[in-house]
Amino acid sequence: MQQRFAKRMQGAQKSFIREILKVCADPKIISFAGGLPHPISFPVEAIQVSTERVLREDGTNVLQYSTTEGYLPLRQWIADRYCTRWDLDVTASDILITTGSQQALDLIAKIFIDPDDAILMEYPGYLGAIQSFEMYQPVLYTAKLHDEGLDIDQAGKLIHEKNPKLLYCVPNFQNPTGITYTAENRKAVAKLIHGSQTILVEDNPYGELRFMGEDQMPIFKEVGENGILLGSFSKIVSPAMRLGWVCTKNQEIMDKLCTVKQGADLHTNYFTQRVLADYLQHNHLDAHIEEIKRLYGHQRQCMFQAIQKYFPKSVKVTKPEGGMFIWCSMPVGYSATELFQKTIAKKVAFVPGDPFYVNEANVPTFRLNYTNSSDSDIEKGIAIIGETLHTYLQ
Amino acid sequence: MQQRFAKRMQGAQKSFIREILKVCADPKIISFAGGLPHPISFPVEAIQVSTERVLREDGTNVLQYSTTEGYLPLRQWIADRYCTRWDLDVTASDILITTGSQQALDLIAKIFIDPDDAILMEYPGYLGAIQSFEMYQPVLYTAKLHDEGLDIDQAGKLIHEKNPKLLYCVPNFQNPTGITYTAENRKAVAKLIHGSQTILVEDNPYGELRFMGEDQMPIFKEVGENGILLGSFSKIVSPAMRLGWVCTKNQEIMDKLCTVKQGADLHTNYFTQRVLADYLQHNHLDAHIEEIKRLYGHQRQCMFQAIQKYFPKSVKVTKPEGGMFIWCSMPVGYSATELFQKTIAKKVAFVPGDPFYVNEANVPTFRLNYTNSSDSDIEKGIAIIGETLHTYLQ
Repeated sequence: MQQRFAKRMQGAQKSFIREILKVCADPKIISFAGGLPHPISFPVEAIQVSTERVLREDGTNVLQYSTTEGYLPLRQWIADRYCTRWDLDVTASDILITTGSQQALDLIAKIFIDPDDAILMEYPGYLGAIQSFEMYQPVLYTAKLHDEGLDIDQAGKLIHEKNPKLLYCVPNFQNPTGITYTAENRKAVAKLIHGSQTILVEDNPYGELRFMGEDQMPIFKEVGENGILLGSFSKIVSPAMRLGWVCTKNQEIMDKLCTVKQGADLHTNYFTQRVLADYLQHNHLDAHIEEIKRLYGHQRQCMFQAIQKYFPKSVKVTKPEGGMFIWCSMPVGYSATELFQKTIAKKVAFVPGDPFYVNEANVPTFRLNYTNSSDSDIEKGIAIIGETLHTYLQ
Repeated sequence: MQQRFAKRMQGAQKSFIREILKVCADPKIISFAGGLPHPISFPVEAIQVSTERVLREDGTNVLQYSTTEGYLPLRQWIADRYCTRWDLDVTASDILITTGSQQALDLIAKIFIDPDDAILMEYPGYLGAIQSFEMYQPVLYTAKLHDEGLDIDQAGKLIHEKNPKLLYCVPNFQNPTGITYTAENRKAVAKLIHGSQTILVEDNPYGELRFMGEDQMPIFKEVGENGILLGSFSKIVSPAMRLGWVCTKNQEIMDKLCTVKQGADLHTNYFTQRVLADYLQHNHLDAHIEEIKRLYGHQRQCMFQAIQKYFPKSVKVTKPEGGMFIWCSMPVGYSATELFQKTIAKKVAFVPGDPFYVNEANVPTFRLNYTNSSDSDIEKGIAIIGETLHTYLQ
């Protein structure tokens, strides 16, 4: 029987990256393809202790249904951290706990996007956002990323002409490029938002992972009720727990998000919220984050040095000050997908840039992850990619 | 600034029940409003042991990202149970783990429903399904429920005339009515599906909780690739864990569900999947379920006897053989919402029927939950509702 799927499913494809990750399951492959945090970021023993405590002290509540908004002390912890770390005027009622920040993208898209609505994103942009948004059939416009952040002229022109409902961006150690917006660029983005009807969706999964340079203020601080800030515990405690959040001072948006969250999964896993809240109460998160940053800074340096040693000079790479990714650009006309076919034959994987663009194929860019490989694998894998590049780019 | 929400948000309201539950937070209120499992159903100590074991034996994997489809041994356990308990021809690849079965409803709606598509449901029907489906702007048609199940004539006529994409039903101890479809009714529903383009969505959150009478075969067994069967661990292990599943032999549907699941939350909480899988491996789930059923059977009997003692004879009630709810119908013309206002003033709560219907208000029906109240609260609360009914129905 011919299935009668919804129109939104036409052309919907499984995540390219998740399909690549299946290829990389072979342990003989050196993979820079994933976006997996290093196991050092999982506080296994402390989670053990917290689980034992919450089940012992309050087991029957910990395993019961709970509220859509999320566990109040966890929301309070997140709000307090925004206040102390960034001097943001945020309270627990401005926080909604979501099933990972991926769910936040889906909920935001659901409350805002009608078919053919304009949405503005980065070029290249986070593929998980593209995937979430496209389910609601918007027209996705993109503004280029430069080393200092978003192309303000292009973004301004698109906001003026297309009046997008949302501007989605990842200003810290962006996925896929690793680029961080400068203070000036952030101010300019905030100014664009002020003069528009566009809501800023500022995604910040990697913000805590700065291993060099200075922290930058969230753009959110400058845009008040026209902003939505997303966060996640995936990169600093555990991605398996699927715990992220939405922060907004706009109570109308918050109200709508809670309504659609009820229909989406009633509430976020409460058992795990309780474990995490207990962990945060009894441990020094910042000390834990320092350990992660020390390792990632080292791994990034290791990969960067190998790239300088092995890659042809015609390949441009970003110099991330935090996060998990380096972005590589071959000269125009070459295809990273072609390159991938050649390196995977030599058991080295990365992510070709295609899925980070809207409707483009065979782009010359690709993404390297450095957080989940040993020093020797980084050296060996980058040498193989470099050798392949030297042949391919001739 | 005027927010520019999507059209689907017009009229979207927060779940009526969750709003009622907030009122019931007052511990002085006797509440038959919730759908909360009794704490006896939470195996706190065994979950403690399983958590300790999985974190000790495989901590860094347990806290890492995982696959969209779900943890294979958990999917295998579910498939094996279908095979042994119902002789269903199901394998692990026919199972997708979801963030509660509520998420399954959202994912199914997302892959199937375009605006104005016809969907067929029960009258009255599960409000969480109404809430999920309405986000995709279908036209919801309903067929009446009788004591023996779905009104086959009415459902058949609607399938013939409206050609609905989905028929959604809860054949075991339905929410809100507690009604169970007979074997004959199930056969007749399967026959309707066979002669149509309609996909059966059979939701079964309470099926394991039969405390009297005989188990009935899932309709799913008769409809092959035209069926989707939903299940959940919420009522037999823990709702806080948000672990449900989709089962379908239709690989095209399964493939589309995985694609939208990626965009919705990447994958279901893996930490909790591992804990649950370990729990299921090391414990006797059926012995645990027996305990729950013994209590619920007792509570249902207790409430039923109180109803016979205190309610006017003009109020008709269902006689559930399992599950969590009794459904009450006052004579036509009376409003359960009015009744609710009167009983809540006397500190007794239930759920007026309105949210279980599509676009109806002030219906004369209401739902009583018996699983989370003591014998004495059941006696006392039903006496107060009965007394109020005697005055109200005069």
